[in-house]
Amino acid sequence: MKPDYVHGYSSAEDARLMDQASTLTELLHCDTTYPPDSLVLEAGCGVGAQTVTLAAQSPQAAFVSVEISPHSLAQAKARVEARGLTNVTFREADIVSLPFDGDHFDHVFVCFVLEHLASPEKALAELRRVLKPEGSITVIEGDHGSAYFYPDSVAAHRAIQCLVDLQRRAGGDALIGRRLYPLLVRAGARDVRVSPRMVYVEASRPLRVDGFIRKTFTAMVEGVGEQVIRESLMDEDAWRKGIRDLYRTAERDGTFCYTFFKAVGVK
Amino acid sequence: MKPDYVHGYSSAEDARLMDQASTLTELLHCDTTYPPDSLVLEAGCGVGAQTVTLAAQSPQAAFVSVEISPHSLAQAKARVEARGLTNVTFREADIVSLPFDGDHFDHVFVCFVLEHLASPEKALAELRRVLKPEGSITVIEGDHGSAYFYPDSVAAHRAIQCLVDLQRRAGGDALIGRRLYPLLVRAGARDVRVSPRMVYVEASRPLRVDGFIRKTFTAMVEGVGEQVIRESLMDEDAWRKGIRDLYRTAERDGTFCYTFFKAVGVK
Repeated sequence: MKPDYVHGYSSAEDARLMDQASTLTELLHCDTTYPPDSLVLEAGCGVGAQTVTLAAQSPQAAFVSVEISPHSLAQAKARVEARGLTNVTFREADIVSLPFDGDHFDHVFVCFVLEHLASPEKALAELRRVLKPEGSITVIEGDHGSAYFYPDSVAAHRAIQCLVDLQRRAGGDALIGRRLYPLLVRAGARDVRVSPRMVYVEASRPLRVDGFIRKTFTAMVEGVGEQVIRESLMDEDAWRKGIRDLYRTAERDGTFCYTFFKAVGVK
Repeated sequence: MKPDYVHGYSSAEDARLMDQASTLTELLHCDTTYPPDSLVLEAGCGVGAQTVTLAAQSPQAAFVSVEISPHSLAQAKARVEARGLTNVTFREADIVSLPFDGDHFDHVFVCFVLEHLASPEKALAELRRVLKPEGSITVIEGDHGSAYFYPDSVAAHRAIQCLVDLQRRAGGDALIGRRLYPLLVRAGARDVRVSPRMVYVEASRPLRVDGFIRKTFTAMVEGVGEQVIRESLMDEDAWRKGIRDLYRTAERDGTFCYTFFKAVGVK
């Protein structure tokens, strides 16, 4: 287990990651498919939330999904097996030091991983090394600074900022979505195309209200609450109000906006 | 002239509004067309930046464009004539007290207007009054709280906040985009559908870099600079840094995000 993963490795967190994946699958992954017989690296597969979608959408491609946490890796494996998918192999590995030769993979896919790394540049260099020339790299990340909502709330924005600060302290960058373009360009990718995927939620879309506002975003912010209070990053009452105000946006007259960024480049 | 219009009525401002319209035309208006012989109210046409697009896209519909500022109205008229468009009539009128019978128009269109009003609810009630049953109302607004960028900058966010504060002081709401859904629902519209239109800009899209980051958004913020300094809303050096940091996002490794909201409802 990597102790500095800001969201932790609890089973509530596993449930949140699965809720997140099923709500966002179409938005984020609908246009990711790989040709038959291609060999694809999924770097940092976590508990397999994205792996099952990737593998199901490209049944004739072969995936190698690596993950640094053996605990998460075991869950990913179980999840893929439970779905009856047979085109994924798993391997414990660190994204900045991969146990593969250069020019090994036809394509590389990395989702919700770079935001947690002290040096996304180093990871991208390593991913580029194992990628074949003309191969594609797909990167998907969120950006917590893209969250805004109605009713607006200073306390809610401060609560989100606590998560951003904690992630920064752990070496990550919760605002990485907006900088995927320069990151990939600097890593030597060409033909970089970034497409923002905005999640806009209001009462006319009740599944998204529950799946995204409550179970994905607010649950994620709420998840660092103990640490925020323990380390006095925010006054407990103000924190509680911030969380309450985030849930408040899920009511009938509320709205919520968040944007993920998907970048594709070529080696 | 309405003296409390936050952006003023200068000719630099006219140019900015035209730059804005031509950059954003497709993004905002591509899906707005009206059937032949329909009578459409454009409420608050300003200098006609949107009028020319509306009228050209629905050449067989008849538009009535109203505006409270006679100066702007004259410019709108000249602009429409210069384009050879003959399906628009103009009338000086206040959006909260329209000189039309009830149930008069087949459709209503209002763009970048509600953000400036002390009571958008009152305007929407009046627009609903003049709209025929089953007629549609289309509302387009920005949301300055949706702006974020790379490199991130506290000074730039503070400069934007000055514009938000000035607009609030003038009775408006520069964060209105996110609340179009509840506004329209409360105004009695049904089948309300909101579609966010995100402008994402980086170096691979040079026209947008110049047209949006420099000439539209940063020019708009910069436009209230004198007032900000005069009224000490921000220290002059910090303000200058904020504006510089906004222009900085237009460089090769910068990115910029802003979202407009388009809502359509039915009476």
